[in-house]
Amino acid sequence: MNVDREHDAGDALVAEFRTIGLVLLFLSGLLFSFVADAALPCRGTGDLALIIERADGAVRVVETTHNTILGRVEGLGDLSHASVVYSRDARFAHVFGRDGGLTKVDLLERRIDKRIVQSGNSIGGAISQDGRLIAVSNYTPGGVRVFDADTLDPVVDIPAEYAPGVRSKVIGLVDAPGQRFVFALWDAGEIWVADMHEPQHPKVTKFKHIGRNPYDGMITPDGRYYLAGLFGEDGMARLDLWHPERGVQRILEHYGRGDKKLPVYKMPHLEGWTVAGTRAFVPAVGHHEVLVIDTLTWTEVAHIPTYGQPVFVMARPDAHQVWVNFAFPNNEAVQVIDTESLNVIKTLKPGKGVLHMEFEPRGEEVWISVRDRNQVQVYDTATLEQVKTLPVSKPSGIFMTARAHRIGL
Amino acid sequence: MNVDREHDAGDALVAEFRTIGLVLLFLSGLLFSFVADAALPCRGTGDLALIIERADGAVRVVETTHNTILGRVEGLGDLSHASVVYSRDARFAHVFGRDGGLTKVDLLERRIDKRIVQSGNSIGGAISQDGRLIAVSNYTPGGVRVFDADTLDPVVDIPAEYAPGVRSKVIGLVDAPGQRFVFALWDAGEIWVADMHEPQHPKVTKFKHIGRNPYDGMITPDGRYYLAGLFGEDGMARLDLWHPERGVQRILEHYGRGDKKLPVYKMPHLEGWTVAGTRAFVPAVGHHEVLVIDTLTWTEVAHIPTYGQPVFVMARPDAHQVWVNFAFPNNEAVQVIDTESLNVIKTLKPGKGVLHMEFEPRGEEVWISVRDRNQVQVYDTATLEQVKTLPVSKPSGIFMTARAHRIGL
Repeated sequence: MNVDREHDAGDALVAEFRTIGLVLLFLSGLLFSFVADAALPCRGTGDLALIIERADGAVRVVETTHNTILGRVEGLGDLSHASVVYSRDARFAHVFGRDGGLTKVDLLERRIDKRIVQSGNSIGGAISQDGRLIAVSNYTPGGVRVFDADTLDPVVDIPAEYAPGVRSKVIGLVDAPGQRFVFALWDAGEIWVADMHEPQHPKVTKFKHIGRNPYDGMITPDGRYYLAGLFGEDGMARLDLWHPERGVQRILEHYGRGDKKLPVYKMPHLEGWTVAGTRAFVPAVGHHEVLVIDTLTWTEVAHIPTYGQPVFVMARPDAHQVWVNFAFPNNEAVQVIDTESLNVIKTLKPGKGVLHMEFEPRGEEVWISVRDRNQVQVYDTATLEQVKTLPVSKPSGIFMTARAHRIGL
Repeated sequence: MNVDREHDAGDALVAEFRTIGLVLLFLSGLLFSFVADAALPCRGTGDLALIIERADGAVRVVETTHNTILGRVEGLGDLSHASVVYSRDARFAHVFGRDGGLTKVDLLERRIDKRIVQSGNSIGGAISQDGRLIAVSNYTPGGVRVFDADTLDPVVDIPAEYAPGVRSKVIGLVDAPGQRFVFALWDAGEIWVADMHEPQHPKVTKFKHIGRNPYDGMITPDGRYYLAGLFGEDGMARLDLWHPERGVQRILEHYGRGDKKLPVYKMPHLEGWTVAGTRAFVPAVGHHEVLVIDTLTWTEVAHIPTYGQPVFVMARPDAHQVWVNFAFPNNEAVQVIDTESLNVIKTLKPGKGVLHMEFEPRGEEVWISVRDRNQVQVYDTATLEQVKTLPVSKPSGIFMTARAHRIGL
């Protein structure tokens, strides 16, 4: 009996320990999985970047300190012409797809945090100065839709209705200082400025008759001038955001397709405009030239012969060089121009399908997408030598988190 | 026997489960502590900042999205004139103390990662363009010492020996594009440029006879011009880093203490120089004025009367405003100048001991240290209204992580 009782007590103890053991085992497992989750993402986010894998609807997460791939996030839909903005803390990327998709990607956990399809057909977007609002510019239905940057909940719609019942495609959407969004109406030939201080009640100022078919827009790095390129005529529209009361001015009267000696394979991106000191370096349209514009007078002061029709003309952050890529059939090359002598100092041949370039924020290296080689190549901007090759599937845009801290990107 | 054997087996089992239980309990505890550690720091680092608490040898870690204090790190030594640079990933701050201390602070874990006392008496430092080297400028012994940014292991010494056995105090140390450090020698009247491509074998170019007693230096935002202020005479020394072969030029011949009508309470910081478009806004020395310099000709084009002797003259990132603080006995005020009209548009009175200001990187808010009120105040730069007050012990410098991505800071 005594023995039996002890035996029972022993059994009970065994059972108790077994239960405790199992509970602890479960807890440990749970904690291990937490730790695994938690241990992975803890790092600074200042040196991260996303690379668009257009064909796969995916993005690569990379870091630019050791130039390595950290991970991949899939399921982002149609990423043709995709662009990216970053949250103030540089943890989240908002990726704008061509199919109306707006995807918030967590760079630390390397997963989709939230995703909505907010229209049928969209082109680019912007994040407000305070980081709280995401705006998307839509072709169908034409207008700008604004979302909460954190939750992606809708905040307000700005339909681009320029005549009763008629809506325009919207292009060239950028953020501007003073919590504003600026964009252009392709069909209407208008520029609109939306003051978002009261997010649900934007104050919209409309500038009409700015020129036929604005096809893209950009803002100068200081956030002062909004420039719209015109597809329907030569010249550009310029709005001084310090003086909206002065209206839109026409500048660079000969800028555009002009006499059309060459077919235009691709209208150059205005995001590719580069302001270096008092000069802007600008892709000519349909010509094998980079134009040099004096930004004090907004007149053309020089043109530099190039390897092909320029697409992106990007300044190294110290503005001592601009790097240029080209439209088909010359898209295997990149040229480096010295901004002082205006000479081409190097012609690189990364390979067919050079689609985009992004400088590290202090300019020591530049990342180049080479679509047809499934590569991103990294170059030292002092030696102009290739220092790294990363395997990436059909890479297009490259977007570093330092963009979080800049105006108008 | 049988029972006994069972009993023994039961005991053994109990002991075994007890052991397993204890091990699991220990593991759980360990994992809990890991999770607690890991859960705390996981976040983006793009919106973080450090505020120096000079009197306590401590720094506050804050975030600028919701404007809150996240933590405090102590044990950094003498933080008079302390300054901070950031790692490329914006996770680590390198804090330069006045006592030769160099402290690497982990902003995520909010603790000192590494700390060395590298000299007896130092003043500021810089991080190389590639983020791999930290340079500290020393008074005693005079020179620059270079450390591995990650480990703080010594890499190389650059003694400021300008005559056999004679070393100068070093001031005005900045990073420059092309993996260079630039600094000035107070006692020698020289500017040195160190090319750090081979870290253990820096190539040093020396510019002699640049003027008497350079007391501070700065580099223009594009990284092209290094400017040294002179204590021993009027005028400034300017080196064009694109053309070091042209030597050092003298500019602004009347800039300095001049006729000394007013006592100079504090030589203004050159880091406070602001380049906005083609104009630089510069603190006058010993006068209640901000000077406006045309950076195309490097001549003075205007002067703006101010509330006191300016110390820092800081441009809002869109360059539409500059904010100015003042030396004792006028250090309770901040003035806001419109860079287009050159008018003072507002005089704020944050309180006695306004020591520093830092703009959020896209300019929507500015943080101001008010030492004697133990406050950091945050202002909306559009309304010029105070939006937040944070309790901070004797705050001085404020340094946001967006500095990680800029040249010459």
